[in-house]
Amino acid sequence: MTDFMPTPADRFSFGLWTVGWPAQDVFGPATRAPLDPVETVHKLAELGAHGINFHDEDVIPFGTENGERDKLIARLKEALSATGMVVTTATTNLFSHPIFKDGGFTANDRAVRRFAIAKVARNLDLAAELGAPTYVMWGGREGSESGGSKDVAAALDRYKEAVDILCQYVREQGYDIRFALEPKPNEPRGDILLPTIGHALAFINSLEEPDRVGLNPEIGHEEMAGLNFAHGIAQAMWHGKLYHIDLNGQHGPRFDQDLRFGAGNLRGAFWTVDALESGGYSGPRHFDYKPPRTEDVAGVWETAKACMRNYLILKAKVEAFRADPEVTEALAAARVPELSEPTVAPGESLADLRAETVDVEGLAAKGMAFERLDQLAMEHLLGVR
Amino acid sequence: MTDFMPTPADRFSFGLWTVGWPAQDVFGPATRAPLDPVETVHKLAELGAHGINFHDEDVIPFGTENGERDKLIARLKEALSATGMVVTTATTNLFSHPIFKDGGFTANDRAVRRFAIAKVARNLDLAAELGAPTYVMWGGREGSESGGSKDVAAALDRYKEAVDILCQYVREQGYDIRFALEPKPNEPRGDILLPTIGHALAFINSLEEPDRVGLNPEIGHEEMAGLNFAHGIAQAMWHGKLYHIDLNGQHGPRFDQDLRFGAGNLRGAFWTVDALESGGYSGPRHFDYKPPRTEDVAGVWETAKACMRNYLILKAKVEAFRADPEVTEALAAARVPELSEPTVAPGESLADLRAETVDVEGLAAKGMAFERLDQLAMEHLLGVR
Amino acid sequence: MTDFMPTPADRFSFGLWTVGWPAQDVFGPATRAPLDPVETVHKLAELGAHGINFHDEDVIPFGTENGERDKLIARLKEALSATGMVVTTATTNLFSHPIFKDGGFTANDRAVRRFAIAKVARNLDLAAELGAPTYVMWGGREGSESGGSKDVAAALDRYKEAVDILCQYVREQGYDIRFALEPKPNEPRGDILLPTIGHALAFINSLEEPDRVGLNPEIGHEEMAGLNFAHGIAQAMWHGKLYHIDLNGQHGPRFDQDLRFGAGNLRGAFWTVDALESGGYSGPRHFDYKPPRTEDVAGVWETAKACMRNYLILKAKVEAFRADPEVTEALAAARVPELSEPTVAPGESLADLRAETVDVEGLAAKGMAFERLDQLAMEHLLGVR
Amino acid sequence: MTDFMPTPADRFSFGLWTVGWPAQDVFGPATRAPLDPVETVHKLAELGAHGINFHDEDVIPFGTENGERDKLIARLKEALSATGMVVTTATTNLFSHPIFKDGGFTANDRAVRRFAIAKVARNLDLAAELGAPTYVMWGGREGSESGGSKDVAAALDRYKEAVDILCQYVREQGYDIRFALEPKPNEPRGDILLPTIGHALAFINSLEEPDRVGLNPEIGHEEMAGLNFAHGIAQAMWHGKLYHIDLNGQHGPRFDQDLRFGAGNLRGAFWTVDALESGGYSGPRHFDYKPPRTEDVAGVWETAKACMRNYLILKAKVEAFRADPEVTEALAAARVPELSEPTVAPGESLADLRAETVDVEGLAAKGMAFERLDQLAMEHLLGVR
Repeated sequence: MTDFMPTPADRFSFGLWTVGWPAQDVFGPATRAPLDPVETVHKLAELGAHGINFHDEDVIPFGTENGERDKLIARLKEALSATGMVVTTATTNLFSHPIFKDGGFTANDRAVRRFAIAKVARNLDLAAELGAPTYVMWGGREGSESGGSKDVAAALDRYKEAVDILCQYVREQGYDIRFALEPKPNEPRGDILLPTIGHALAFINSLEEPDRVGLNPEIGHEEMAGLNFAHGIAQAMWHGKLYHIDLNGQHGPRFDQDLRFGAGNLRGAFWTVDALESGGYSGPRHFDYKPPRTEDVAGVWETAKACMRNYLILKAKVEAFRADPEVTEALAAARVPELSEPTVAPGESLADLRAETVDVEGLAAKGMAFERLDQLAMEHLLGVR
Repeated sequence: MTDFMPTPADRFSFGLWTVGWPAQDVFGPATRAPLDPVETVHKLAELGAHGINFHDEDVIPFGTENGERDKLIARLKEALSATGMVVTTATTNLFSHPIFKDGGFTANDRAVRRFAIAKVARNLDLAAELGAPTYVMWGGREGSESGGSKDVAAALDRYKEAVDILCQYVREQGYDIRFALEPKPNEPRGDILLPTIGHALAFINSLEEPDRVGLNPEIGHEEMAGLNFAHGIAQAMWHGKLYHIDLNGQHGPRFDQDLRFGAGNLRGAFWTVDALESGGYSGPRHFDYKPPRTEDVAGVWETAKACMRNYLILKAKVEAFRADPEVTEALAAARVPELSEPTVAPGESLADLRAETVDVEGLAAKGMAFERLDQLAMEHLLGVR
Repeated sequence: MTDFMPTPADRFSFGLWTVGWPAQDVFGPATRAPLDPVETVHKLAELGAHGINFHDEDVIPFGTENGERDKLIARLKEALSATGMVVTTATTNLFSHPIFKDGGFTANDRAVRRFAIAKVARNLDLAAELGAPTYVMWGGREGSESGGSKDVAAALDRYKEAVDILCQYVREQGYDIRFALEPKPNEPRGDILLPTIGHALAFINSLEEPDRVGLNPEIGHEEMAGLNFAHGIAQAMWHGKLYHIDLNGQHGPRFDQDLRFGAGNLRGAFWTVDALESGGYSGPRHFDYKPPRTEDVAGVWETAKACMRNYLILKAKVEAFRADPEVTEALAAARVPELSEPTVAPGESLADLRAETVDVEGLAAKGMAFERLDQLAMEHLLGVR
Repeated sequence: MTDFMPTPADRFSFGLWTVGWPAQDVFGPATRAPLDPVETVHKLAELGAHGINFHDEDVIPFGTENGERDKLIARLKEALSATGMVVTTATTNLFSHPIFKDGGFTANDRAVRRFAIAKVARNLDLAAELGAPTYVMWGGREGSESGGSKDVAAALDRYKEAVDILCQYVREQGYDIRFALEPKPNEPRGDILLPTIGHALAFINSLEEPDRVGLNPEIGHEEMAGLNFAHGIAQAMWHGKLYHIDLNGQHGPRFDQDLRFGAGNLRGAFWTVDALESGGYSGPRHFDYKPPRTEDVAGVWETAKACMRNYLILKAKVEAFRADPEVTEALAAARVPELSEPTVAPGESLADLRAETVDVEGLAAKGMAFERLDQLAMEHLLGVR
């Protein structure tokens, strides 16, 4: 591991749309040619990745005839089989085609909603065929720019209706598939429904089959709201709902940058890896990012390599941090382990707490020693310990 | 109502700490003398308010002896009785005293956690005595500045433990009290646990008595994360969890400004009132704000009046908007009511949707007419219709 | 004016790229067909606008042959002449074509920089021919995503070199044209050079012909940095540098929303109009916005009408606010006019100030009465006075 | 240098108010006792610092009688002399006392403005006596919460008047002192005048003695506006105006966190050190931060040590990055050095550029190789090269 070279055992995966992004944006057209999904699979396998995921349209352009569709799928399966790569997740594009300009599951237009559900169902069949265990739902156009245009309660009813139907379908078909909702606060819509990890977790509790649905949080999406990503996934894991993860980089509240993992908030990336590795996350380490518009295809592959490499570097550092005896001592000084001890002991009651005499001034004066601990983490990150 | 003068029927309430804030901040000491809670009750009653709420320490300074405590409570009860004002909610200050510098329920130090729970229990007795139906919990110091210093899973365990114990206490005492969690993303801690409406809603589902616990969202807190407040409370109401509300003003992601209601994001305030009034919210319209440090006590009362007045103005505008036939027509053109219709009709199945032929290009080309609708709302807000 | 119908005397103008935006974004392709510039000119004239502006490529697609170019220009001139519309400003697109992926004037690649300068020069000839008095420079791709990739000092040298050369060209040609720099903090680049009004003002002072260069600030761009736009343009006017303005709407730090004027921060729009109208700004009231992707072409024209209408509504309100005797009285109470009085009187010296006895406690205790004043502004805005 | 131990040659300095902050905030009182300035000087000297700076009130409480004042100054001078510590800058507190609640130089109240100028003048005498070569001006209360309460043009007139008078005073007294303005976008005021590096640079150009005035930018202040700090100081150096610097840490747009240097945006800190060291900045490396409220005095000294240590670590990494032959090669591939070459060669004219045939498609297709370069920087930062 000292050379930080990825292997399939590391379970790194990439969306076809990440390295394959041709780099169009609001202010200019593509600067790169589209990549052939088959070549992408081969190249990623060569770099040490373990799997891929895709939107239906990454593989099968919108409106493709059935015969052509079958050929495209066959080619992809061949590439997977040749390389040993797996499909870790699949998803549906309900945000690009103009029909989805007001969303899919929560579009005001009922005909659009019906079309959206059918589109997902069709791609679920493909996901099952390709063995994808997780199906991601990013509702990027589910939202609004103005207050009157979206009845939020009705929209949540429709959101629930759609997810319930698709859960039922998966169950009835016997597919071994779980759903993972991907929250985002805004962009491309002014405000998106289920904007954060928290909102999506709450929503899941109202579904008919909450156990079939979890989350696919993305670093950049939470950081666009100024939220601490490691805290967010820790809460998701606490609820048993971290089904998948999107790793990338972002510089706080601004447009969705989708930088390679490690770029942006590096200290946040360290704590993210710590949360995943210490928290027992066992899913793929998935990268959802966009190689900047300045890069040619050689630059694209540099970014893919760097994503994996940065994860391995940070993992090694996190492990060293957790194994460092001085860190153990600093954690104790900061009373971090004490938080795992129940506040009320077995057999105790609230009355016992109320009867207790507390050394208020003593506790008030006692420092928490958090800064020393944080500096130790910093020095592990910087490689100077 | 045309003169926008508040009456108790409007159910406006204020925290004693709002008008009573002496205006100290990180960069300077108080600019105003503390207000006597009794005078505050009288003055607010005179202005047309319906109720107040308070932290224990707003009425009873930290460390007050029991005898003195009883006198302070008696004085407050007298003022309430004299004015007909009610106590709409109560809460505990677990964030000012240095003992709480690392939080209350989730402080690493177990002795602090025990003290915090006991402090809440004691004030719950007072809340019950004063008839407060809702007990707010704002965990402003529950959080961290650095990644290693807080074990988030353990912290959520302790948070749950504390709320469960206090729910049990309220139930056992037969108090008619519900709890309302108040989320906030940051400040005074670098990152606060349960940072948004969504995170708090999700947490509630993991409690022993989820039906006893709901939310007290604050406009400024959600807007500090760039989130749409009207969307947030609509989701909270969808979950049946909007127990109370904190109305104020904020200019997006920056320090917690706590401006008077209406200041800051005025369009957001319009949609907030719309969400409350259309959504069937029946609790107090509570203001949680801080009169700026530039104001003397006369300015303080101007802000209290303005909060209530702005609510009444916006309420009248929202009602006019919803009653305007041109708005009804524009909502229909934007297909807003269509979102309330189930996507799948009774008797239909997913197979029917998949078999359907959809006019994709026709739907793609059809505009949503949202801008016309939003402009109608704008003109109601501006008073030019 | 009571019906808020725009006339050419109001000097409203639109970029061809605003109503003409076909609504492609990072997540999806266009939802609207391109508009013919000639039809746009006619339609805007019909709606009461006074002028248009354009990027070279809005009228003449990149790479158009000379013969075709002449025809396109002739058609546009005809439309202008038929409608009486004027060209208020022109500008060059140095951000769409992939050649500009690393910027124009500050691209690392010298050949790109040379091409960029030549492209501007060519379009300056057209601007002069069409009588545009102001030439806007928005350097949307002048910036970087990563620290090592751009030598900022060298980039500012090259920026200065380019602007100096173009100033010289305009002077030598005798064109009656001034330049207006348009700052933006980020998007599409991670960080853009000259990110705010302030940075651009500072840069102008280092040019060879600072008097020929001013600013074209945009509401949304400053608000993406959380800055107060009315303050920003007030400082620009203080320096004599507000040459042009881009009016639109934004919800604070997030992606560039380019909402119609009035949407987003409505209170900010009120103070922006106040700053322009009270501050003696005499240029066009220009709208630079994007009709949302949800709208069809009918919706597009609704937004264009609404931009102008909202400006006229706010202008009427600002005038009423400034003419209201109670406001005059409240301004006096807030000592606002006292700020126009020099702190040191003629004949006085610093020594006099130092010798003075000041009633510190009296001044400290005296409230500023700002909230009452702000509430008066709010009530004018809401139309309830 | 391999052990990253600071020495006076590193020119590290601290404000007395940094380590001495007793940790009061809006939500709670102090958690630490005040530090004696004399002990602070000794302790900082022991830790390897080179100097200190102070607000008048850090040394001499507001309202101190002259006799007592002299004693306090004498004690401080003794400590400086005993330790060899220098006073790198001084400044005036125009933001804490309630008299300054609406600002100092731009307070609406003229009597306050006069008092403010006199207060600065008095402390300038002390600064000169103590040999401080730079005098910082942070106008933290110069601003407003609402649009009508501050006439920005008049405020800038008054700001200029005050700085002009003080420049004149320094010149007339023959003091060897330069002024450094410190910008900040907001907090404690809703919006502060001269909110960014750019706005302050522009303002300086309008002063009577622009050569006597430069900047003291602070990392956190620019990052609160989402701006790139390294870019900001590079522009300030380009204008010859980086007189001093405030190093600390911040997590983007939110309240002013004032974290120890390195915490927050670590990648930004790397590029900040690169900008300073490569850009020829020769002033003190000054830390302006606040040890978190959780720390006791032992924790305070940990943070002071960590600030210096992190700077030295980052400096070593920046030097290694710049000396790495693979970096040199990557910079060339990214054409970074090419940006230092004038776009137009000596003897060339704009006509030459316009006559040139450019390989547009070739340039468009050529990648910039920025990501590889950035990854090299990342690996130097992480210590894995």
